[in-house]
Amino acid sequence: MTLPMNRVTFITLGVRDLARARAFYEALGWTPESATEDVAFYAMNGSKFGLFSLAGLARETGRDVAGLQTGAMTLAQNQGSQDDVDAMFARAVAAGATPVTKPFKTDWGGYSSYVADPDGHHWEYAYNPFSPLDDEGHIA
Amino acid sequence: MTLPMNRVTFITLGVRDLARARAFYEALGWTPESATEDVAFYAMNGSKFGLFSLAGLARETGRDVAGLQTGAMTLAQNQGSQDDVDAMFARAVAAGATPVTKPFKTDWGGYSSYVADPDGHHWEYAYNPFSPLDDEGHIA
Repeated sequence: MTLPMNRVTFITLGVRDLARARAFYEALGWTPESATEDVAFYAMNGSKFGLFSLAGLARETGRDVAGLQTGAMTLAQNQGSQDDVDAMFARAVAAGATPVTKPFKTDWGGYSSYVADPDGHHWEYAYNPFSPLDDEGHIA
Repeated sequence: MTLPMNRVTFITLGVRDLARARAFYEALGWTPESATEDVAFYAMNGSKFGLFSLAGLARETGRDVAGLQTGAMTLAQNQGSQDDVDAMFARAVAAGATPVTKPFKTDWGGYSSYVADPDGHHWEYAYNPFSPLDDEGHIA
């Protein structure tokens, strides 16, 4: 079976405190599919989002926790309007995210904002008027 | 419009040298959808994978490049068999990835491996016999 290469099956974020991380994402409305003491998974569109204890991730990859850093990666969740970007940014900050970039008009004609989750993982909440979302929130 | 929360629209990796990063991913078979001098996008299943210059990412988020680190996140691309995991691991290393964890039998009954891309972003190539892939490589 030859599968397409343009695929990501799991996006897994290493987190210092899984209970805290779960509380943050679930306060935003993320619905878990399964969870153990070490890991939680959230089903998406043919792929999954995961939260994995940093200790578990370090063990699995033979690294020190101190070597597992953040910042050079962003996950974006596009929204249906500028107002929805403002609302998601506020909702994330209320749930414990750190504001990184307040909602602003981008040079590509969109509207964007950035927050960091409790472990420093960056999320962009954006609206792109040139890239509509279907009813499930997916882009073409 | 109320959209599902369990969504990621873009996975964007910050990279020091976009040409080098593109060469790595495209050697693996990733097919770009669009690219500029600063960013390249790869269409997936209702979402996109992106490579963004670290300088551009730092500018957009008002951070120093030095503060944009890696390691506490993994992207996994599941494969159709153990042999395919071995083949992808070898192919990634041949394309310039750093081996992190050679293919091994996991405690959950699967088969996994980890590499780091030229910028230190971790990828897992895994086979999960309990989570079959459809013809497009997506999981249920």
